[in-house]
Order: sequence, then structure tokens, then C-alpha cells
Amino acid sequence: MPWLKNCWYQVAWGEELSDSASLARTVLDTPLLLFRDAGGAPAILRDTCPHRFAPLSAGRVAGGVVRCNYHGLVFGSDGRCVHNPHGPVTGRMRTTAYPVVERHGAIWVWLGEADAADPALVPDLAFLDRAPPQTSIRGHMPTACNYQLLTDNILDLSHTDYLHPDTLGGMMTGARTTVQEAPGRVAIEWFAADREPSAAYRALLPGGARADKWIEVAWTAPAILVLRTATTAAGVAWREGDLTATVHSMTPETRFTTHYFYNNVRYFRVDDATFHAALGANIFKAFALEDKPMLEMQQARMGTDDLLGLKPLLLPIDSAAIRVRRQLAAMIAAEQDSEPVEVEAPQPA
Amino acid sequence: MPWLKNCWYQVAWGEELSDSASLARTVLDTPLLLFRDAGGAPAILRDTCPHRFAPLSAGRVAGGVVRCNYHGLVFGSDGRCVHNPHGPVTGRMRTTAYPVVERHGAIWVWLGEADAADPALVPDLAFLDRAPPQTSIRGHMPTACNYQLLTDNILDLSHTDYLHPDTLGGMMTGARTTVQEAPGRVAIEWFAADREPSAAYRALLPGGARADKWIEVAWTAPAILVLRTATTAAGVAWREGDLTATVHSMTPETRFTTHYFYNNVRYFRVDDATFHAALGANIFKAFALEDKPMLEMQQARMGTDDLLGLKPLLLPIDSAAIRVRRQLAAMIAAEQDSEPVEVEAPQPA
Amino acid sequence: MPWLKNCWYQVAWGEELSDSASLARTVLDTPLLLFRDAGGAPAILRDTCPHRFAPLSAGRVAGGVVRCNYHGLVFGSDGRCVHNPHGPVTGRMRTTAYPVVERHGAIWVWLGEADAADPALVPDLAFLDRAPPQTSIRGHMPTACNYQLLTDNILDLSHTDYLHPDTLGGMMTGARTTVQEAPGRVAIEWFAADREPSAAYRALLPGGARADKWIEVAWTAPAILVLRTATTAAGVAWREGDLTATVHSMTPETRFTTHYFYNNVRYFRVDDATFHAALGANIFKAFALEDKPMLEMQQARMGTDDLLGLKPLLLPIDSAAIRVRRQLAAMIAAEQDSEPVEVEAPQPA
Repeated sequence: MPWLKNCWYQVAWGEELSDSASLARTVLDTPLLLFRDAGGAPAILRDTCPHRFAPLSAGRVAGGVVRCNYHGLVFGSDGRCVHNPHGPVTGRMRTTAYPVVERHGAIWVWLGEADAADPALVPDLAFLDRAPPQTSIRGHMPTACNYQLLTDNILDLSHTDYLHPDTLGGMMTGARTTVQEAPGRVAIEWFAADREPSAAYRALLPGGARADKWIEVAWTAPAILVLRTATTAAGVAWREGDLTATVHSMTPETRFTTHYFYNNVRYFRVDDATFHAALGANIFKAFALEDKPMLEMQQARMGTDDLLGLKPLLLPIDSAAIRVRRQLAAMIAAEQDSEPVEVEAPQPA
Repeated sequence: MPWLKNCWYQVAWGEELSDSASLARTVLDTPLLLFRDAGGAPAILRDTCPHRFAPLSAGRVAGGVVRCNYHGLVFGSDGRCVHNPHGPVTGRMRTTAYPVVERHGAIWVWLGEADAADPALVPDLAFLDRAPPQTSIRGHMPTACNYQLLTDNILDLSHTDYLHPDTLGGMMTGARTTVQEAPGRVAIEWFAADREPSAAYRALLPGGARADKWIEVAWTAPAILVLRTATTAAGVAWREGDLTATVHSMTPETRFTTHYFYNNVRYFRVDDATFHAALGANIFKAFALEDKPMLEMQQARMGTDDLLGLKPLLLPIDSAAIRVRRQLAAMIAAEQDSEPVEVEAPQPA
Repeated sequence: MPWLKNCWYQVAWGEELSDSASLARTVLDTPLLLFRDAGGAPAILRDTCPHRFAPLSAGRVAGGVVRCNYHGLVFGSDGRCVHNPHGPVTGRMRTTAYPVVERHGAIWVWLGEADAADPALVPDLAFLDRAPPQTSIRGHMPTACNYQLLTDNILDLSHTDYLHPDTLGGMMTGARTTVQEAPGRVAIEWFAADREPSAAYRALLPGGARADKWIEVAWTAPAILVLRTATTAAGVAWREGDLTATVHSMTPETRFTTHYFYNNVRYFRVDDATFHAALGANIFKAFALEDKPMLEMQQARMGTDDLLGLKPLLLPIDSAAIRVRRQLAAMIAAEQDSEPVEVEAPQPA
């Protein structure tokens, strides 16, 4: 499967994993079991007992270890068997433990070469840590499409005018856009001047006022997008306090299903519970009731084909998405080329 | 897929398509969007936006054009983009428009070579136009089997005695049959004399009277069957006024699912609402509750195999169906042989 | 599909087939129709009309014959057509009839070479016939896993301590085991001394008493297991009157689904209706609510791969299961090698 392997993928939000519970989730076709060790740190094991392939997630997690519910083998957070009720523990008794980091409120897993799993490579989402916590709106939305369709969706926000006209959209068509590209990063900036404000942000302006909207979407590999946006009265420059920022973090579950994690924070109306609730409802409507069905229908129409293989009619608004697809394809190709090739030993003549 | 392409397929009944609504329907594995243009004429587009493959049927049809709900491209009834909110319209911005004819109450689509789409080739079902409209009983019944099983079903009406004993059947076993074949046409005539009448037509006769039944089923390619039948008191010759006539129009949705369209009209008891309601109930019972499950079970038993490939035990009652299958197979083979073969240009030496 | 063909498979319990009803069931991917002939003996036909492949089970069974509901052909218990409403009966009008035996309360079918179908080869489960009938607890549990996973499950009862701790388990971990193997037979004996009794058998002992448990599980090909067990007060040798005995009879429906038939009888508390009801509830909980989901999850994790091909971590407790798998694989290979090879006739030069 054409996935980037040597990178961190978000697998959950931290609060999805309590101290006492475990969580089963598939990433890159790999079934994973998440739980917390005795110290509260997250652990991620392959969710399969090596004995008879029962899912460990059907077992019992307690005290930082997991007991398989079929024949009672117990595994620690490093994947090693710590108890075999039927005889001695041997070194072969282990399941795979994956490198894991908890950072920026999220739990990250590394499915590539374990030696390369450098925590410094976790995407920098420190803005989430610094934002007023009471403004946080976040979720996990499983979506039945390839993860790149979700990336494309955020990289072309002109869709908001047509798919989300009553909430987040209505200002983007014809906006001035600038795309910037560097190795490992693509960013697109949008500026729309003097328009009817989007419904979700109308409360920020005096009644009947027209608005400017600024948006920047920045991608980092494999599929992390940070969107920052400000809506101000027309002609008024935005300041930091006008910003809302959202991470859109796409993790492939399978080739045609994706874990879509999102987290929105803001620096205005910080303690306005009414605005907070309305914004949450608008985001839910746009993401779950409008984006998700559209993306799933798009995938259904595409079947098992790749988007570019189907020769879509590309428009200038696709520029950022296409650059991202090209960079990612090159990164995946480079990673695959660099994989150690198994060479068969010469046969005796 | 072994389908006849250069012919008209019924895709809907006209009343399924109001002036304000659209209809999404798949024919020969091709997703179609049906709507009416500003003049009320039906239009059929490929139901896929050429930009990012969103279904146009998820968009909005108004004023004879359809707007994609994902990024707002607007397409006219000829498939050409008539509005691009994000820049100029170019000639490459188009989706496929298919030839369409509305005739005999039905909407017909041509999925083969557009140049060959001659409206004169629409099957002649003018009897539907001339019949008393208040006698019309029609429907669209999606059925999970190959369309040829539905054709076979109508071409061997002996099944009605076993599958529809309480409604339409009971008179056919041992009836005298005559099969006539000409290029592009197969017809089978049935005559059963002096029998207990079928339940659905018992009201036409005096209590306890025995009946004669005459039926003719005529096939035209690819899968249009016109059935005419008269039930009279035993020994009484039928006249035009005794007839009921039904078109059975089978349109492949996919290889193993079919749109079954039917329309029954009659020339007796024209204004008898009680008889009309009872006949409608009998037809619904026979088609939807008896034929459909049997055909779907038959398909399930056959899996992905072809009927003749499975070497069925053929009986004389299969004669018409087998002739139809042979003619159709020859027509499909001829069409495929005549397709322009793509010849690669010679490579420079 | 790697199945042993020349052997008897249980297809139903006798009481599942009343004199007036029929039963459709698939065994080794073969759809079967079961009914009783005029004398009450079970008959098994391929559940497909040879005419147009309608399932005969959708027809009507009466008087020991079955009438297809599509065109009315009637077949007898030997598979031959006994009535063709549309013309003469010929020798080619037949569906396959399979050898069938009703014995030990079960109906057995032979899907291999009919000439080899010796009733003497039906597994000897005469203990079922001799047991007090009021103690019988039996069922048919369709399970979405390969039949060999069900065999493995019974051959390693250590799982009961982890999967059925509240009912049948709790005594097996660390029990002394002995495996005996002979051609066509593998048996494993367990003995656990001086433990807390399993919940299901606690009522057999004085309050608070500790228990010994003896179990023997004996396999015969392809997938018949007889389990005999006795729970006694610690240090007290078991006698015949302490025994409960269960047949576990696994019949493949498809490669990844199985008919699991079980029948438990006992020689104690024979007329104790309260104990009988509690034991039935315990068995249902263990089999249907615990084994079945675990086995189905195990199969889901394995996908379409074979257990041994996935290189499981084998433990000493797997010894009996592995011996059974090896014997069965050898029997299947021998059967396939002995199949007459179709040699093409030499072509005229």
C-alpha cells in the first residue's frame, strides 16, 4: 500500500484513552491496541495475540499489562510476555510494540522502522497547548475515503461556499490565493475582501457589516494540516486575537477509510459559552453532515482508482492539493527505494 | 461486460422525473443523472463531476442546469460547463451527455456511439399511448439478477402456474405453444382451452364458467417484451376488447442487478375501479412478492456463472428463451466485432 | 477447498427435520435440501433444480417428493424427476441425491464418491443413544470461522479458565495432560487435582469443598470430538455415574463458516430439572456468548490465511490440536492424490 511508513501518525486524542480502559484502532491496515502503562504513559501493541491470533483488545487490561482472554498469556507495554500460565516464558513470546508519543493532546504511533522513531519528528502543534483550553473543539470522525481526499478537501477551501454555505463558507469564491512550497511543506493563503461574512462568524461583527477573511492552510507530511483564519470587519487588519486555528490530522485506517482528527481553538470570545456551543454545532454540521457524506460519495464514484489516474479536470484551485500529492508521492517513492532489498543468498552450484 | 450498447434502454418512467427534481440511476454500470431542461425535455448526464468526481446528483438542479455541490461548477443539459465560479469556462469542462428520448411514457437513453442514436430505433410501444390511460398499472422494480433471467421468465409463462397460482397463473401447463422467429424478433403464442380461469380474471366470466386463454409474448432486442393476453369463456373467440397488454422492459443496472419496468393496460372494465385495484394488487403480488424473490434466489444459486455455461436441463418450454439468448448473443458479438479496433501507431525505428 | 470428502458429515439433528417440513443447509459449499421420504427416512438432494437452478427448498415438499416452485418439476428422494408437467420424464431429469444415514440422533451426509459411502463409517456415538434422554442438551450453532478453529478450541481446554471462568472453566491451567495418538485418532487426557470447582459443577459437591477434574477429549476425522469429564470431591476417584459426555461435531458450511453441533448428556442428577436448566444455561453462555465471538474474532484477525501459515507461537497446550491438524492434512492429501486424474484422450495426428 502506498503509505509513508517512517513518520508519526495520530492514532487518538489523549482523552480517548483513560487510565483504566483500552482502545482498539486500526492504522495503515494494522490492528492496534492502545492502553496506559502503570505510569500512565500510552503503550501501543499489535492487537493480536501471537499464540492463536485472538485480538488482545478482547482481553483485560489492568495494571499496565494486557491478558489475552483466550488462553491467558499476559503482555507488557513493551510487547513481551510477562506471564504464561501454561509454562515458562520464553523470548519468542511477544507481540509487536510500536513507538508511541503523547504530545499536543494527541497520541502518535510510528509504524515504520522502530530505530528511526524520533519523537522530535512529531508534528509541531504546540499552538494547541498554548491556546485557551476552554475554546477547544475536537473530535474523531471515521470517514470512508482515502486520506488524500480529506487532505485535498482542506487544501481547497473554495468548497466551503458550496458545501457549507450556512456555516463556515460563503466568502471564498474568487478570493486571492497564494501558494508557497518548500520541501516537506505546502501552504496556501486566501484573502477575501469586503463580503457577506460566513454565518459561523457573523456574531463577531456589527449587524449588517461586511467582512474580510484571511486563511492560511499549511500542510506537513504525511497528512497534517494547520488552518488559521481570521474574520474582521471589512478593511480592518486582523490581529492574533482574531484568529481561530484548527489542526486537521488524517490517519489512514485502510486504503479507503480514514481516521479524521480535528481540533479547533480560538483566541477570541474565549469565555463566551454561547458562541462556543454555536461554533461547535457549525463545525459538526460542516464536517460530519456535509464533508463526510460528500467525501464518501466521491470515493464511491472513484471506486478503487487513484484520483490522478482518473484524469480529473484540474482547476487553479487544485494547485495546493496537487503540489501536496506530488511531494507525498515522491516521499513515499524515496522511502520505498531506500528499503533494504532482500537479496537471496547465492545457491550452491 | 457483454451488453448491447447501440440501442435504447428505458431508464425511467416519465412521471418519475418532475420538472423540479432530478433522478440518479445507474444503467450498464454507468451512473446517470436525469433532469429536465428549461423546456421540460429530459436530459441525461454522466452523474460525475469531471473535476473531482463528486456525484452531480448530490448537487442542485434548477433552471435546466445542475450545480455540483462540491465546488460549484454548473453544467447544462448538453454536458458543457456553463459556469465556473473559480475562473473562465473552457471547452474541457464538460461531463458526458447521453442521447435521450421521451416516448411512450418512458425515458430512453443511448449509451453506445452517440452518432448512431436514432430516435426511430426506440421500441414501438405506441399501444401504451393509445390505451385508456385510467387502465395503466406500471412500476419500476429493481431486481437483483441478470436482466436475461427476467427475459427468460416472461418468455416461459408456464411458471405462472407454479409461482403465481393464486393470481395470474393456473392455465398454462400443457397449453399449445407456437414460436416464431425472425431477425430481431422472437414471439411465442400460447393457447389454453377449457380450463379453470386464473384468479385475476375470474371476475370477467360468469360464476363457475370455464375459460380459454390466449397469450402472445413478443421480444425485441435487447430486452423489451410485449405481452398481450385475453381470457374468454371457453369456446368464445377473443376480440380486441378482451385484451390486456403489458410491456416488460428490462434494463441492466449492473451485471447482476436489473431495472425491471412494467406497464399493464387493458381494453375491458376500463372504468371499473374495483377491478382495477384488484388487478393492481394481483400484479404486485405476482411480480414483487413471487417473481422477484425467485429470480434473486435463482441468481444467487448461479453465482457469477452464465446460465448456459452451467448446462441447464433445457425443456421444450425454454424454446423461445433460448432463441432470444442466441439472437442477442449474436447481436452483441457482431457489435463488438464492428467496434473500431485501436491500432497503435508504428513506433519510429 | 482442502476438505476431506469421503467421510460422513453431520448435517442436522434428527428433530430439526419433521415429517412435514424440509430444511435447507449448505455443507462444504454445497447447497442441500433435507426432507423425509414417505417412510420417514431422511433424503438429501442438491438444493438446485437442474432446469433453471431455482432452489428446490423454495418449493413444496409433500408425500416424500419435492416440487420446484418455478416450473413444477417434481423430484423424488433419489433425485430422479417423477413428474414433468410440460412433457415426458427423461433420464436426464435429475438432481444429485446424496447418501444419508440417520444415526445417534443425527443426520449424516456423504459428499464424496457415492460408492464409498459405507454406513459403518458413521462415527460411533452410541453413548448418546444409551444416555438418559432427559439429560440431553443439544444445539446447532452456526459460527463464522473455519471448522478447524473449533476443533482446536475443544482440543485445548485450558481456554475454559480464561474464556469461561464463571461456568465451565477455572480448573484446567496447569493440569496434568497426556496426549495419545493413533492413525485416525488423537486423544488428550487432563487431570486437575484439589482445586476450586468450576461454577457449573459446584452444586455436585458439598459447600466449599475442593474438587478434582478429569477430562478426556478424543478426536476422530474429520472433526468429531467426544469429551468426557467428571468432577469429584478432591481425592475421590470418579466413577461412570459421575460422567458427563459431550459430542462436538464440526461440519464446514464454507471455508470460513461452520455448523457446530453439540450434544451433552450426563449420568448424574438425571432427573434434577433445576440442575438441568442451570447446566443448559451455562453451556449456552460458554458456547454462544463466549466461544463463538472469540472464534469469529480470531478468524477475522486471520483473514483468509491458514493458521499454521501465519506461524503462530505454539505452546505445549497446542500439542493435541497440532497432531490433529497434521493427521487431517495427511488424510486430505492422500484423498486428493488418489482421485482419478482426468487424462485427455490422445488427439488424432
